[in-house]
Amino acid sequence: MQKLQQTIDAIRPPDAAIHRAALQRLADQARPQGSLGVLEPVSARLAAIAGTLDVRLHNKVIVTCAGDHGVVAEGVSLFPQEVTAQMVYNFVNGGASVSVLAAHAGATVRVADLGVNADFEPDLPIFHQKVGRGTANFAHQPAMRRDEAIRAVAAGIEIVDQLMAEGKVDLLGTGDMGIGNTTPSTAIIAAFSGIEVARLTGRGTGIGDAMLVRKIGVIEQALALHRPDPHDPLDVLAKVGGFEIGGLAGLVIGAAAHGIPVVCDGLIATAGALIACELAPAAKDYLFASHHSVEVGHRYMLERLGSAPLLDLQFRLGEGTGAAMAMHLLDAATRVLADIKTFAEVGIANAHRPPC
Amino acid sequence: MQKLQQTIDAIRPPDAAIHRAALQRLADQARPQGSLGVLEPVSARLAAIAGTLDVRLHNKVIVTCAGDHGVVAEGVSLFPQEVTAQMVYNFVNGGASVSVLAAHAGATVRVADLGVNADFEPDLPIFHQKVGRGTANFAHQPAMRRDEAIRAVAAGIEIVDQLMAEGKVDLLGTGDMGIGNTTPSTAIIAAFSGIEVARLTGRGTGIGDAMLVRKIGVIEQALALHRPDPHDPLDVLAKVGGFEIGGLAGLVIGAAAHGIPVVCDGLIATAGALIACELAPAAKDYLFASHHSVEVGHRYMLERLGSAPLLDLQFRLGEGTGAAMAMHLLDAATRVLADIKTFAEVGIANAHRPPC
Repeated sequence: MQKLQQTIDAIRPPDAAIHRAALQRLADQARPQGSLGVLEPVSARLAAIAGTLDVRLHNKVIVTCAGDHGVVAEGVSLFPQEVTAQMVYNFVNGGASVSVLAAHAGATVRVADLGVNADFEPDLPIFHQKVGRGTANFAHQPAMRRDEAIRAVAAGIEIVDQLMAEGKVDLLGTGDMGIGNTTPSTAIIAAFSGIEVARLTGRGTGIGDAMLVRKIGVIEQALALHRPDPHDPLDVLAKVGGFEIGGLAGLVIGAAAHGIPVVCDGLIATAGALIACELAPAAKDYLFASHHSVEVGHRYMLERLGSAPLLDLQFRLGEGTGAAMAMHLLDAATRVLADIKTFAEVGIANAHRPPC
Repeated sequence: MQKLQQTIDAIRPPDAAIHRAALQRLADQARPQGSLGVLEPVSARLAAIAGTLDVRLHNKVIVTCAGDHGVVAEGVSLFPQEVTAQMVYNFVNGGASVSVLAAHAGATVRVADLGVNADFEPDLPIFHQKVGRGTANFAHQPAMRRDEAIRAVAAGIEIVDQLMAEGKVDLLGTGDMGIGNTTPSTAIIAAFSGIEVARLTGRGTGIGDAMLVRKIGVIEQALALHRPDPHDPLDVLAKVGGFEIGGLAGLVIGAAAHGIPVVCDGLIATAGALIACELAPAAKDYLFASHHSVEVGHRYMLERLGSAPLLDLQFRLGEGTGAAMAMHLLDAATRVLADIKTFAEVGIANAHRPPC
């Protein structure tokens, strides 16, 4: 708990003077004011985080946190639990969706085992941060103990510490792998928001109507049984969360403490970001929402975070695929701010208003 | 007219067998079906166009067509007409918005003068395809003669011919520059759709309420005066269009005839694409809509084209900036199809449906 609190306390606000200077430069550029839409505020935020108008996001890393979920025993997912571990190997071997999209974005994928129900070889090149072999089935008992929730978040922080020790990271992306993990993610936003579970629950990997009804029932049952305290994010994480979701929260807190921007993926990674920002509201200044997931609960998470997603590609995959796609936009935003010339620089008359 | 008709007749449909094979591979990949949203159908279309499942969009070119508009005399734009020519130099010198975003996309920007009201040095490295020194003020007379409309479209086709002669182009983007050109673009969609002008008209570079009312009035007046025939796209282009809009139409027809994908920018480039597809419906198979512009008329153009935009970045700039941003997505789609492994390739069990 000490590590977690110290890291939260270490988060500093981005540079407000640089933010103002960025907005001024954007307004002076040789184009109609505001004409580059969402790239403009994003570029100013990135500048304020980096402390310069010429931001370079050279070293991009996506950390994909993996974990298993006891709640799959209730029949809430189409895929068997073994797929979580199999996909970890697929990430390491570079054949997965996030591998392909991260390569295209110029990002490295690093995999972290927060709680997969399998033993990985110690020399497998992943972050070995296993808190447990899958969570307990939260339909009947809390997903994990409170000390395990703290360990999971601290593990995410440690991963950022390790990455920064290996070499400076300019942009961190977060992604997830865990069969069944739309169920805890939906439970988390339900716990925080109090919104009716049926309105928040999506089809995950593509379940049919009968499974959807079961999934809603399982989440309602868990919330009624455990009564997670929405004012205590660690209680929410422990009772209806997941190990990888705790890790994903830690990544956001760690990135904010190190002063680097972090872009979160869809439903599960945003559940982690939500836990992070409920624990550490100052982390929000460092967080970018990559895309709008097909999963219905995602919208409510983003509303609670006050984050507008950069993309809507109708993704519902996870792994960090949406984060990878958004990295190109964040890069583009940095170039917009630094490289587009001002009216003065190119000697063109700014807009003049003819008499109306 | 002969060149135009020959080019339209040369458009062949993309490869349907490759399209089917692409959809099958996407369905077999080790991820939930449909989970990569819009990238999936886009990747299959690109494969069908290229005739291979491993599409490589190495050589990307954005052609920014410039032209001036007599209708600016009515006071419909914030910027003076001289800015069109000044921006041509800004494009050539690489300091403009599209220069920056194209560089980020790995694309080359080529500028074409279709009808700027200025004389450029013959050795300025642009396509010199001037049809006239700005259109006539269509509030009072047709923007151009019918033979000029045909010349403008043919000029766009010739530009693609020249680019292909210089070296294979894998992906063409279209963009525009022309002070006042949201006015003809809005008039074009009004002429085709018959929708009330006030519902289609936006604020362009950021005009206030009084200018917006004037802009709507000018378009209504022009449509009432000239009565462009919605079944005759060249009549629409001649009466209420623009030289660069004709060129933008020619780019789409030329790309389709050469069998290369073309991604159009926002309102003005889409007005050109609309003229193209009204003239040559077969060109639609080669067309991708890059983004959803803030300009309200754009939505109605996309509906008429049956195209869903890839991005919504709240852009309202033109130049090809949206097309540049979408190129990363198109590239990503090609990698998704070719590089993400199938369940069989990685030895992972596909989704099994537990008894419901």
